[in-house]
Order: sequence, then structure tokens, then C-alpha cells
Amino acid sequence: MGYNSIVNAQDSKIIDRRLARIEGQVRGVRRMVEEEAYCVDILTQLTAVKSAIEQVSAAIASQHIKHCIVDQDQGHEQAKSMTKEELLDELDEVLGRLMR
Amino acid sequence: MGYNSIVNAQDSKIIDRRLARIEGQVRGVRRMVEEEAYCVDILTQLTAVKSAIEQVSAAIASQHIKHCIVDQDQGHEQAKSMTKEELLDELDEVLGRLMR
Amino acid sequence: MGYNSIVNAQDSKIIDRRLARIEGQVRGVRRMVEEEAYCVDILTQLTAVKSAIEQVSAAIASQHIKHCIVDQDQGHEQAKSMTKEELLDELDEVLGRLMR
Amino acid sequence: MGYNSIVNAQDSKIIDRRLARIEGQVRGVRRMVEEEAYCVDILTQLTAVKSAIEQVSAAIASQHIKHCIVDQDQGHEQAKSMTKEELLDELDEVLGRLMR
Repeated sequence: MGYNSIVNAQDSKIIDRRLARIEGQVRGVRRMVEEEAYCVDILTQLTAVKSAIEQVSAAIASQHIKHCIVDQDQGHEQAKSMTKEELLDELDEVLGRLMR
Repeated sequence: MGYNSIVNAQDSKIIDRRLARIEGQVRGVRRMVEEEAYCVDILTQLTAVKSAIEQVSAAIASQHIKHCIVDQDQGHEQAKSMTKEELLDELDEVLGRLMR
Repeated sequence: MGYNSIVNAQDSKIIDRRLARIEGQVRGVRRMVEEEAYCVDILTQLTAVKSAIEQVSAAIASQHIKHCIVDQDQGHEQAKSMTKEELLDELDEVLGRLMR
Repeated sequence: MGYNSIVNAQDSKIIDRRLARIEGQVRGVRRMVEEEAYCVDILTQLTAVKSAIEQVSAAIASQHIKHCIVDQDQGHEQAKSMTKEELLDELDEVLGRLMR
């Protein structure tokens, strides 16, 4: 059942909760702009949003490596249909984009 | 009227439109998680969100420098109450955080 | 022999070549500062250095995942002495820092 | 005398000292690769180098805004030959690149 197995359904819930919080943060920034908050305070808030996105991305990348590459048969259906070689090449490219 | 002057009200609308799009992107990522999209596709989407946040932050920082520091009297009320020295020290600290 | 095996000695050479180039780039930036180059040109050059460091980091992270985690027994001595669990926890923490 | 005035010559020295330290850090990373240090330790060191580059870039950007844009006649010769409008457009583009 891949990504939907018990362990991962739980992970998936945690990820969604973090994304929901990010969505709320972005809405908060919009409110700040509307209420003419001081630009520097808006920038501080946007820095926090960016950091939250980076952290959730790192968590998803970790889970991907763990469930889809190391324990490939526990992973997402798409990963199961790929060879280890293909998964590692894909990861190489993903990390290049995530770390810039 | 500071940040609310005609020129800036327009800027403010453009900023809000960009933030609205980012909010929509985050909602889209949540949908992807819910529908069990492939982790790598979720990461690609999150990279796009991060990039959009960086670009809107750069635009706000630019406007802040232009309207609050260079042409201080066109800027936000808060900026008008500060000395040039204070504004530059604050900017120094903000750039340090934004560029990391 | 782990990290020193034929495959990895080659990887190691490529990594060193990229780091040597980065060292040269930093020396070039110092020369620009000394010769009073225009600040914006110095910043452009520093952006290139940062990008080169991100790319070499991504490459090393990829190799680490491939040689030390997926094929643990081909990896570095230190990795061989750790459990898969410990390696994945360590990676989780490393990715969090690299992606910020 | 622009960038070469007493104040800025001092700034310039501080910048050079920071770049010299970065150059030394990169050399240190090369040594780690040569001595087959553990990949994760190399990555930790590269994260520190990246952070140092971001901080020196932020400092140079700050000085540029202060000396070349706000007090344009204290700035670099190149900045003196540009209009305020051109300097702000250029900055806009620079910040976009530095913040990504």
C-alpha cells in the first residue's frame, strides 16, 4: 500500500499539519500587508515562512530516502517501479535543486 | 499617508496578488500530500513555493530601501520616525537574515 | 577500503577539483576587493561561489546516501560502524541544515 | 576618492579579512577530503563556508546601499556615474539573486 501504510499515513498527517501551519502563516502575511504593517516586520515573517518550508522539505526528503530508497518496498508505488539506480539519479538531481 | 500613497497602494496590490498565489500553491501541495502524490513531485512543488517567497521578499526589501530609506519621507510611518542611521542599521540586520 | 576504493577515489578527485576551483574563485573575489571593483560585481561573483558550494555539497550528500547508506558496506569506515537507523537519523539532521 | 576613502578602506580591510578566512576554510575542506574525513563532517564544514559567504555578501550589500545609494557621492566611482533610478533598478535585480 506504499505511502499509505500505517507508518506513512502518520507521517503524512504530520506533514499536512505543518503545511496547514505554513498556509496560515502566508495568510497572516497577507493580512499584515493589508493592514499596512511595517515592511521590515513583513520581511521577518516571510523569513519564518521560508524556514518552515525548508524544514518540511527536509523532512519529506528524509522520508523519501528512508521509505522509497533504503526500504524501497515500503515506499511510494512510483518508487517501487523504478530501479535503485534510477532512484539514486533522481535523488541526485532533487538534492541539487533543494540545496540551492 | 506613507505606505498608503497612490504609488505604494499599487505596489501593495501587486504584493498581495503574489502572496495570494503562494497561498494557493501551498494549498496545492497539501492536496498533493492528501492524494498521495510521489514525494519527489511534492518536493519539486515546494521548491517553487520557496522560490516565490524569496522573490516576493526581494521585491519588498527593494521597495523598503527605495521608499523608506532613500526617499524616507515617502515611506512607512514607522520609517519616518527613525533616523537614517537607525534605518541603515536595521537594514543591515534584515539583509543578514534574508540572505542566509 | 571504503571511501578509498577505486570508484570513490575517483569521486574524491572530482570533489577536490571542484573545491580547488572554489578556492580560486574566493581568491579572485579578494583580488576584486583589493582592486576596488564595483560592489555589485563583487556580489555577483560571491553569488557564483555560493552556488558552487551548494552544488558540491549536493554531490557529496548524494554520494554519502549512495555509498554509506544504501550500499553501507561500500561506504566510509565511520558509516560501517553505525546502524542503518543511526545513519538515517544523522541524515535527517544533515538535510535539515543543508536545505536551510 | 569613493570606495578608497578612509572609512571605506577600513571596511575593505574587514571584508578582505573575512574572505581570507573563507579561503582558509575551503582549503581546510580540501584537506578533509584528502584525508578521507567522514562525508557528514565535510558537509558540516561546507555549511559553515556557505554561511560565511552569505554573511559577507550581506555586509557588502549593506555597504553598497549605504555608501553608493543613500550617500551616493561617498560611493564607488561607478555608482557616481549612475542615476538614483538606475542604482535602484540594479539593486532590485541584485537582491533578487542574493536572496534566492
